[in-house]
Amino acid sequence: MRILFIGDVVGRSGRHVVTDKLPSLVKEWKLDLVVINGENAAGGFGITESIYHEFIEAGADAVTLGNHAWDQREALVFIARAPKLVRPVNFPKGTPGRGAALVETKTGGRALVINAMGRVFMDPLEDPFRTIENEIEACPLGQAADAIIVDFHAEATSEKQAIGHFLDGRATLVVGTHTHVPTADHQVLPGGTAYQSDVGMTGDFDSVIGMQKEEPLGRFLRRIPAGRFEPAMGPATMCGIAVETDDKTGLATKVAAVRIGGRLEQTRPTFWD
Amino acid sequence: MRILFIGDVVGRSGRHVVTDKLPSLVKEWKLDLVVINGENAAGGFGITESIYHEFIEAGADAVTLGNHAWDQREALVFIARAPKLVRPVNFPKGTPGRGAALVETKTGGRALVINAMGRVFMDPLEDPFRTIENEIEACPLGQAADAIIVDFHAEATSEKQAIGHFLDGRATLVVGTHTHVPTADHQVLPGGTAYQSDVGMTGDFDSVIGMQKEEPLGRFLRRIPAGRFEPAMGPATMCGIAVETDDKTGLATKVAAVRIGGRLEQTRPTFWD
Amino acid sequence: MRILFIGDVVGRSGRHVVTDKLPSLVKEWKLDLVVINGENAAGGFGITESIYHEFIEAGADAVTLGNHAWDQREALVFIARAPKLVRPVNFPKGTPGRGAALVETKTGGRALVINAMGRVFMDPLEDPFRTIENEIEACPLGQAADAIIVDFHAEATSEKQAIGHFLDGRATLVVGTHTHVPTADHQVLPGGTAYQSDVGMTGDFDSVIGMQKEEPLGRFLRRIPAGRFEPAMGPATMCGIAVETDDKTGLATKVAAVRIGGRLEQTRPTFWD
Amino acid sequence: MRILFIGDVVGRSGRHVVTDKLPSLVKEWKLDLVVINGENAAGGFGITESIYHEFIEAGADAVTLGNHAWDQREALVFIARAPKLVRPVNFPKGTPGRGAALVETKTGGRALVINAMGRVFMDPLEDPFRTIENEIEACPLGQAADAIIVDFHAEATSEKQAIGHFLDGRATLVVGTHTHVPTADHQVLPGGTAYQSDVGMTGDFDSVIGMQKEEPLGRFLRRIPAGRFEPAMGPATMCGIAVETDDKTGLATKVAAVRIGGRLEQTRPTFWD
Ligand SMILES: [Fe+2]
Ligand SMILES: [Fe+2]
Ligand SMILES: [Fe+2]
Ligand SMILES: [Fe+2]
Ligand SMILES: [Fe+2]
Ligand SMILES: [Fe+2]
Ligand SMILES: [Fe+2]
Ligand SMILES: [Fe+2]
Repeated sequence: MRILFIGDVVGRSGRHVVTDKLPSLVKEWKLDLVVINGENAAGGFGITESIYHEFIEAGADAVTLGNHAWDQREALVFIARAPKLVRPVNFPKGTPGRGAALVETKTGGRALVINAMGRVFMDPLEDPFRTIENEIEACPLGQAADAIIVDFHAEATSEKQAIGHFLDGRATLVVGTHTHVPTADHQVLPGGTAYQSDVGMTGDFDSVIGMQKEEPLGRFLRRIPAGRFEPAMGPATMCGIAVETDDKTGLATKVAAVRIGGRLEQTRPTFWD
Repeated sequence: MRILFIGDVVGRSGRHVVTDKLPSLVKEWKLDLVVINGENAAGGFGITESIYHEFIEAGADAVTLGNHAWDQREALVFIARAPKLVRPVNFPKGTPGRGAALVETKTGGRALVINAMGRVFMDPLEDPFRTIENEIEACPLGQAADAIIVDFHAEATSEKQAIGHFLDGRATLVVGTHTHVPTADHQVLPGGTAYQSDVGMTGDFDSVIGMQKEEPLGRFLRRIPAGRFEPAMGPATMCGIAVETDDKTGLATKVAAVRIGGRLEQTRPTFWD
Repeated sequence: MRILFIGDVVGRSGRHVVTDKLPSLVKEWKLDLVVINGENAAGGFGITESIYHEFIEAGADAVTLGNHAWDQREALVFIARAPKLVRPVNFPKGTPGRGAALVETKTGGRALVINAMGRVFMDPLEDPFRTIENEIEACPLGQAADAIIVDFHAEATSEKQAIGHFLDGRATLVVGTHTHVPTADHQVLPGGTAYQSDVGMTGDFDSVIGMQKEEPLGRFLRRIPAGRFEPAMGPATMCGIAVETDDKTGLATKVAAVRIGGRLEQTRPTFWD
Repeated sequence: MRILFIGDVVGRSGRHVVTDKLPSLVKEWKLDLVVINGENAAGGFGITESIYHEFIEAGADAVTLGNHAWDQREALVFIARAPKLVRPVNFPKGTPGRGAALVETKTGGRALVINAMGRVFMDPLEDPFRTIENEIEACPLGQAADAIIVDFHAEATSEKQAIGHFLDGRATLVVGTHTHVPTADHQVLPGGTAYQSDVGMTGDFDSVIGMQKEEPLGRFLRRIPAGRFEPAMGPATMCGIAVETDDKTGLATKVAAVRIGGRLEQTRPTFWD
């Protein structure tokens, strides 16, 4: 199976590169599964129903979220009718929506997509290690799922690496989101799980994590807000990770970073050419 | 000028790849300046005087530190006789050692090396923006310094990117350390400063940020320590960033990631071949 | 029922005031139930088996803990044979010991003693609201328990007040521990639960939260440890809260602060004279 | 000198008890100096110019602030024409207003009023220990000032007690604010400084730190905001601390807690009857 995961899409600039590039990449790379983190898609804060549909139409088979999940309050409502929208699984019981979704791939396979939030330097949700493990045990790789994608939305590299090792051999891909900066440690772990500490945002990198620089810089210098955070509007880099799996096991065989457009050094998988 | 910055060297495995590879890289790449972050060099925690000398002998022109600066308490003493050892500049007045050092490059140039700690999710030291700015204003690039290297030891990507933009055009290189994972956003910023959110550690990446996996994973699962953190002993990846400068301005003209040895995808500058 | 809860006993000075005063208070006030928080009893860090027995012999019917529960590693073992030792209930499944204990009062009643840790500014344990609620639902006040004591070991007043209101009418006493400073907001909440944001420590108040002042002050000023924290050895104030209950409902009818010995303004219940 | 410090006034309920009670207390107790913390006076968030004047007219000689200083953005402007409004001194250089003010007492004395924020679990402002010390050294007690009042707006009891000991003998009163819960550790420290870890809020204590209970409790349970925080509107307790000084030294000779109105146990100084 050929999988593409695209990191936190920030604002209009980020959405534009997705709608512009993704449809042709799906064809060119013969992708089976596309997952997009959309927690910052609506002006940097949350997601709307129309943006969710925009992503699905552009080729996403699932859309994940994070700490900004509910910034657009309509998400608490429309998530009920958005079966491919996945919010962090470790929110308390009773939270609208789902933290794991078994979605159909473009070629009829079954992909389990899990979203979870880390707890180091973040909100104290339920234990992500055990909640993710529960989801996987209920739908094991190679048995009930042909691929398992874990979007671990977290700050600290220690927690991210720990969860990668914890799930190694049980998931197809464990990919970090949230820091908005891609890491260069993509690899297939010893047990067969593809891993990257953070896939990076899909947004304008002439910014502070996707936002126009002046306001964040001013807050660091003066410790007083002077206005709102606004997404940077320059050309976005689409940051992603490409994974090829072994169809028998659902484990990863190849992994590559994807960076298309914008300021960052460009890269794409060579194994799908 | 040709500059190599090497990220947080962790334990014996990290030290080994440095002493093994650095001397020949200095020759091969005709390096003018080598800076090593050594805050985790002594068993993962701090630095000893003998390790400091090991780094200098291997080719380092300066050694920087971070939140682990004083884990080996002898550092509070020997830093007085270690003129190329640089601790975070934003510790309170009266802290032993120096937070900025003007060192001589291998070819007789003057390089200002500054180390500072971020404050997001970290200790509340003095404002790193203003303390770094003060050091640079006292020794400006292109006038009193032929190169200015800022090792910004910090957790949050927002603070790192903000300081990169803040110093753009005033430093040769602003490079993050501390997360122990290399980022893939190395670039020359619009004003001419080379930037990377985190250069990554020099250590064994089959680990949790350089430490053997069992204890950190156990702490996440059980929330109770069961033992000490011990550095992982597998082959290390040397993570660094290579920068070429314009001799007239001291600003960066080229930048490339360096990853040699160990598990991570290998990369080295092509512009020095 | 007459209940006395004594806050975090710190080191030898704190233990001394307990063994010195508690036995006669039990008689004088005809106490039915005494609970002591002992997380700092052993040199300020954790508890040993012999100190646990010392507290039981002095009159404690249960001993609670907190974030320092396991500082003395023997506690992970001896807690199995210490049926009146209660550690935070919201540690992960599999943690040694118990987070709630139904203990017999001095007069044959049944008291449910629950210990839990807050999560604001503290470790991300399981949700204390729901884990405490589960314990209470399994052993309801006025039915399976004649008194329910909740020691909520937490930092933030917001979380403490929220849990007080959440449990109001379902517990006899919700009392905060951990900040080591008694609050003056003891009251019977509208639903009949006695409440105090923090009962305060039992230790020497000429200190920084029970520790000799020099080292903590030095760390604030210099941000570098210069030695270990050592308990202050001056005369301790025993800080507690006294609660009288309605035997039919198990709810509180009267509440008073207790402060005996040491530097703080002295106070004791007038309703038991 | 007779001094009354009143803690964080929250919303209309808090303001009402101040305007209702303070004018007669000024007369009854023959107060020389009244200081009010007003950071939550405007609907729980910040202060307006008209509320500032309301406090002055009710008898305040100075009004202090905290982390909510700028929630009403007009404060950044009107503070320039509000000479008795004091914001945290350890905001960065260039912040509008002043962090210390030498105000005239009702009887012609000179009182230095300093406001500062702690850094444990709070924003990383400048070092409060050294910034406060600088202010005091520039206007020493018993020489340039007849009284020095330090409102230390902080979360952690350790930092509060440390600053109390640090300033002992150099200030008349070091009083904590911010937790909104009064502590029962008011005392004259060995060097002659009156101290209380937190004076508590002036607001409705049937609340979560002054706010209506539902929204804060819902956020703890569901981790998702459902609305805005609104001040509780029940009868407020005015929480304060009363200090009598030695006119020669400016140090404290007597100290008492003040709690008038609302739910908390009532108390007032006996030494001014
Ligand atoms: Fe994001
Ligand atoms: Fe996020
Ligand atoms: Fe490090
Ligand atoms: Fe570090
Ligand atoms: Fe404690
Ligand atoms: Fe504690
Ligand atoms: Fe406040
Ligand atoms: Fe505050």
